[in-house]
Amino acid sequence: MKMSGGVEWAVHCCVVLSEAEGPVPAQRLAEFHGISRTYLAKHLQALSRAGIVSSTEGRVGGYVLTRPADQVTVLDIVLAVDGREQAFRCTEIRQNGPLPATGAVCEKPCGVARVMYAAEQAWRSSLKEVTVADLAASVTADVGAGTFPALRGWLAGDAV
Amino acid sequence: MKMSGGVEWAVHCCVVLSEAEGPVPAQRLAEFHGISRTYLAKHLQALSRAGIVSSTEGRVGGYVLTRPADQVTVLDIVLAVDGREQAFRCTEIRQNGPLPATGAVCEKPCGVARVMYAAEQAWRSSLKEVTVADLAASVTADVGAGTFPALRGWLAGDAV
Ligand code: FES
Ligand code: FES
Repeated sequence: MKMSGGVEWAVHCCVVLSEAEGPVPAQRLAEFHGISRTYLAKHLQALSRAGIVSSTEGRVGGYVLTRPADQVTVLDIVLAVDGREQAFRCTEIRQNGPLPATGAVCEKPCGVARVMYAAEQAWRSSLKEVTVADLAASVTADVGAGTFPALRGWLAGDAV
Repeated sequence: MKMSGGVEWAVHCCVVLSEAEGPVPAQRLAEFHGISRTYLAKHLQALSRAGIVSSTEGRVGGYVLTRPADQVTVLDIVLAVDGREQAFRCTEIRQNGPLPATGAVCEKPCGVARVMYAAEQAWRSSLKEVTVADLAASVTADVGAGTFPALRGWLAGDAV
C-alpha cells in the first residue's frame, strides 16, 4: 500500500496552523518545513477543498484552520490529501471465467472484498481517534514546551 | 491509499488452490478467473517467493499451497503481493527548516508517524485474523455448497 507523500506535509502544516496566532502565508509554511512552495500549494488546496483550512488574502493573509484543532482528525487530513477511495478495489473477478458468480450473490460484496474493507475500516477508525490538538500536545511532550512559542516567534518574523 | 490490483487475483487464486485436489497449472488459474496468464504469473511468483505457494513441473505440474489453508492469512498474501513497506513514509520533515528537531528527540519516530504506523498496525491485525480457509467457507456460505465440487470438476477437465 502507498499513501501520498503529501500527507506528511499536510499533517505537519495543520499542526503549525493550530499553534499559530493568525493566518500563515503558504510561503512561510513551505519555509518552515523546508519544502517546495509549489508542491505544498497543491496539498493546501486539497485541505481547503475539504474545508479543513481556508485562506485569506491581503497583508495579513494566509491559511487558518477552519475549526478548533480538537475537531480536525488525522483521518480528515488523510482523506483530503490522499483521496477518499478504498485502497482495495474489487474488479468482480468472481463474475469471470467458466463458473461465474451470478445473480443475488453479486448484490453483496465478495467475501474477499469484505475482509479488505473491514481492515480499511479499522485503519480509518484508528486515524479518526487522533486530532490535530493531540498531535500538537505530542510535539510539546516530545520536543519541549518551548517549541510552539519559538514557532510563533519565527512566524512573527523574529530572527532564529 | 492504493493497493496493487494483483491482490484480488492472488487471494482468489489461493482460495481456489485450497479447494483443489492437486496442483493447478497457472494456465487453469488464469482461465478460471478470466485474466491474463502473463500478468497472473507475476503474482504467482510473488506468492511463491513468499513461500505461500510452490510449483511442481511435469504432466501433473502446477501450483499448490505450501501449508494448510487455515495457516495462510489474508495479510500473508497482501504483504507478498503488495509489498511489506509501510504505506506511510516519513521523510523526517521535522528536521527541516529554521527550527529543526534535533538530537535525542529524533531517535523515536515523530508523533505524526506514530499515529500512521498504529493505524497500519490496526489494518494488518484485521487482515491477519482471516485465513484462506475462512474465505473458502465464506464462498460456500455465500454461493452454495456446490461451488467447490463444481470447481473440482472443472479442474479435472469436465465440461461445464
Ligand atoms: S470478486 Fe473482487 S474481491 Fe472477490
Ligand atoms: S517528521 Fe515525518 S511524520 Fe513527522
